Amino acid sequence: MTLKIVISGFGTVGQGVAEVLERKQDFIKRRFHRQVRIVAAFDSRSLAHDDGGLDPELLLERKSSSGMVGDPRPSDMCRFLRETEFDVLVEVSPTNIETGGDGLLFIREALNKGAHVITVNKGPLALHFRELNDLAKKKKVQLRFEGAVGGAMPIINLCKENFMGERILTIQGILNGTCNFILSRMDKGLPFGQALKEAQELGYAESDPSYDIDGIDSASKVAILANAVFDRDVTFSDVSVTGITAITEDAIALAGDQNMVIRLIGEVSPDKLEVAPRLIPKGHPLSLSGTLNMAQINTDLAGPITISGRGAGRIETASAIFSDLVAILEAERQ
Amino acid sequence: MTLKIVISGFGTVGQGVAEVLERKQDFIKRRFHRQVRIVAAFDSRSLAHDDGGLDPELLLERKSSSGMVGDPRPSDMCRFLRETEFDVLVEVSPTNIETGGDGLLFIREALNKGAHVITVNKGPLALHFRELNDLAKKKKVQLRFEGAVGGAMPIINLCKENFMGERILTIQGILNGTCNFILSRMDKGLPFGQALKEAQELGYAESDPSYDIDGIDSASKVAILANAVFDRDVTFSDVSVTGITAITEDAIALAGDQNMVIRLIGEVSPDKLEVAPRLIPKGHPLSLSGTLNMAQINTDLAGPITISGRGAGRIETASAIFSDLVAILEAERQ
Repeated sequence: MTLKIVISGFGTVGQGVAEVLERKQDFIKRRFHRQVRIVAAFDSRSLAHDDGGLDPELLLERKSSSGMVGDPRPSDMCRFLRETEFDVLVEVSPTNIETGGDGLLFIREALNKGAHVITVNKGPLALHFRELNDLAKKKKVQLRFEGAVGGAMPIINLCKENFMGERILTIQGILNGTCNFILSRMDKGLPFGQALKEAQELGYAESDPSYDIDGIDSASKVAILANAVFDRDVTFSDVSVTGITAITEDAIALAGDQNMVIRLIGEVSPDKLEVAPRLIPKGHPLSLSGTLNMAQINTDLAGPITISGRGAGRIETASAIFSDLVAILEAERQ
Repeated sequence: MTLKIVISGFGTVGQGVAEVLERKQDFIKRRFHRQVRIVAAFDSRSLAHDDGGLDPELLLERKSSSGMVGDPRPSDMCRFLRETEFDVLVEVSPTNIETGGDGLLFIREALNKGAHVITVNKGPLALHFRELNDLAKKKKVQLRFEGAVGGAMPIINLCKENFMGERILTIQGILNGTCNFILSRMDKGLPFGQALKEAQELGYAESDPSYDIDGIDSASKVAILANAVFDRDVTFSDVSVTGITAITEDAIALAGDQNMVIRLIGEVSPDKLEVAPRLIPKGHPLSLSGTLNMAQINTDLAGPITISGRGAGRIETASAIFSDLVAILEAERQ
């Protein structure tokens, strides 16, 4: 039985997903005795569609040579999703943290027709989690989003599945690799502006870096963790946010004198929703340097568990999406 | 429908399991609409048995006041297991790394009669993994052992379930908190003997510490990871083992001069099985100080993922056993 996939968004992550599906065909056949086929892939301008299945390599080639994944697309992609037969929507279009953007519409459309959804799109999850989660339950399909928080670091499934029997008390984490890179460089004496410039040159920060350095990205992840792990009903705007732009060289030096570093920490608990720079003792797990993401999960039985991994990257984020796909295949097998 | 549990071994961990089952009754009812009852618990001398269910609090009281969990027990506990009705054996009796000990016999008996087994007993798993795993498959029951490696740190289920779709390339880890405590104290200038004495005074090391400091405990965990995660067929004696007893203050000081520390690292891959002291750069995840366990999992897609948590402790180890029980309940629900 073939599992039909639509990929909405064919940027870095969407392309990574196509590559991973190609690399893992054999594993899927061996483990689940099923075929996974991409029946459609689209970006903001173009669409490739073949009900018999598209060749991932050809999709990647076409995108790389022409900037488009297929032919010019219809403007109403919701209608396309409504009229096309598929089992799983992989929603990885650009995020919009103010409205949820097109991704929100695509996710709603897919869930409504009874398809599973895997997404790393933070806007829809940080703004409309409860609605989307309830819709998925009602339609008896899965809404999965492991890659939306921490990239390859499996924090969502760790909390919801491995620690299903634990009461999770708090999660504290470094949820944005760009900010952590900048703060790590400032530890070495660089002023903020120079550290930011370095991050931009290395491709860690966007030319408009405000989404990262103002703490917005971290805050949307905090909102998602609150909804998904603590069963709260919050949106992005409920999070108390302070970014890293006001951190001075003096503050970093003073922290260093006390054997501390400054890190941008997101914290979620049943009654807390915060992103703020904090003093962290050197040697503490949250004093991590570099671009990794890291989280410390405090539970009633297991005590503190920390996990870290690459928070971004084409194949790393696709790996989180693939783990969600494997979970869907595993559940359908039973 | 009641799930009937037998606890074999009523030392620290067995008592922790009884306490956790008491604390989590409400969660189990709410989530699975089932009751979990301890129908028998025994240690090396005594046995409590009531097919209608034993009160965990009374078991704990009796053990603490008399040192026995029940009345003097029959010598042939295999026969008792054969003749008693139960669904899950929680095997937490003292480990025997040379023969597998009584625990091996109890696990075989339970699997043979079609009961699930949850164990943290490293002897049977490090010596007879393939046989026990095949027997569980044949009988269509689960053999689970999350707590056998890394205590509360969920490394087994992370590798086998969350990373089911990944190819795991290597696992490197600090798998023994006692050795890591001793090496961390030596970093501060203490000689080996004094650091060991401190570990014994704090209850981290046994009066005969050889099981820890000769690397035997780490090696049995390496063997278990090789069998469970890499699908190899090895026993404890296949692991190349060097302990920490030959590490001098001079070696530690020399490492420190190069901004390195010495840590006892277990490494498993498709062609490696090793426990040895290694030089680790300060700041590297494996340079961790203290009694925590930590592992770095390298995979083909997700890249390096590190996880750490408490490697021992009454409630922490019981939490890993409880996560296995939850997984069994979850699988039966589907």
